Amino acid sequence: MKIYDISMTITPNMQVYKNMESKKPIITVVSDFSTGSSHETQLSMNLHTGTHMDFPLHMIEDGLTSDTLDLSKLIRPVKVVDMTHIKDGISDEDLKKIDINENDFLLFKTINSYDEKFLTQFIYIDESASIYLASKHIAGVGVDGLGVERNQEHHPTHKNLMMNDIIIIEGLRLKEVKQGQYFMYALPIKITNSDALPLSIILIEEPHEHLQSKS
Amino acid sequence: MKIYDISMTITPNMQVYKNMESKKPIITVVSDFSTGSSHETQLSMNLHTGTHMDFPLHMIEDGLTSDTLDLSKLIRPVKVVDMTHIKDGISDEDLKKIDINENDFLLFKTINSYDEKFLTQFIYIDESASIYLASKHIAGVGVDGLGVERNQEHHPTHKNLMMNDIIIIEGLRLKEVKQGQYFMYALPIKITNSDALPLSIILIEEPHEHLQSKS
Repeated sequence: MKIYDISMTITPNMQVYKNMESKKPIITVVSDFSTGSSHETQLSMNLHTGTHMDFPLHMIEDGLTSDTLDLSKLIRPVKVVDMTHIKDGISDEDLKKIDINENDFLLFKTINSYDEKFLTQFIYIDESASIYLASKHIAGVGVDGLGVERNQEHHPTHKNLMMNDIIIIEGLRLKEVKQGQYFMYALPIKITNSDALPLSIILIEEPHEHLQSKS
Repeated sequence: MKIYDISMTITPNMQVYKNMESKKPIITVVSDFSTGSSHETQLSMNLHTGTHMDFPLHMIEDGLTSDTLDLSKLIRPVKVVDMTHIKDGISDEDLKKIDINENDFLLFKTINSYDEKFLTQFIYIDESASIYLASKHIAGVGVDGLGVERNQEHHPTHKNLMMNDIIIIEGLRLKEVKQGQYFMYALPIKITNSDALPLSIILIEEPHEHLQSKS
């Protein structure tokens, strides 16, 4: 059983959206052996830092929150799609070259995965592509940038996906993963009433037919 | 495929160790639609709150940290052991009644799982039991309290387990899970150089022989 760990590691100097100081995690030692009998650490982090899942509240006023989480939708077959040839936004024309079916969960591997620094011009899913994905009734999409879109006024990609119940995962690391089918375990730290949840995600290479048949 | 989610949910008023204010998670809305075009949340949390894995640094000066994490040790068969008859500490005598083998990963289900409030007298693994588990060369242990031990001077249970490379998981929720064999996916949020990592954990009921044979 080959396991790919496709989540980011949380470090003080990790890449964060637009390099904003407010998005950098703060890791603090709150107790050590000079002050007590144990060593304890505190993490303070914006929930859109690192690998995470967006909920509709992130972009839609009064949108659904993490309280509506259905874990079974994150444990399922996925398709990793090689998009490393894309230089800017992924468009509907790019997607029409790919076999996309109802209920697919697509993880787009782009050149974002090959850089540990934040790319100002990161590859994203453009508005036309989000409309196309919604028309195909896919179940979810994962990207290897820290945003599913970039510089699109009013965030149409987020909204088109969210309003069509398409799960959005951001911040994947896919450099080591080839295009193909995998079984995904995307397990969240469950925080109540939130606009995002941190995810730890693995892909299993070997197809398990008895698992796929149940999805 | 029956999936059991055995992790705690993070809420402002969740149970925390000894009800200490400093251990309660702080969930803050840092942006909303009155101030910007998106809704974003920040979490600040002691990493020993909620379901988590301890690393030796937690109790041993200069002990190993999360940088030594080997994910494959958290994706494997486990045994859930019903210990709901225990009223105080689990002792070596209690464990001698159970079939324990080398490389087992044991999750102890106790009455802790039946209460969402912090129990001052929570069930724990006493020093004699930790010595016994070390002698059996088990791989890991999970408990449904927020500490693997309670009121033992110098933390001998933590130290006996850690010094024998036995993984420690704390804060499980096992009320819904019957005694038996399961396949565990315990996926951490990877934070560098830490004494603990938050875990999201599921148990799969159906035994997958092809998975177990590789562990």
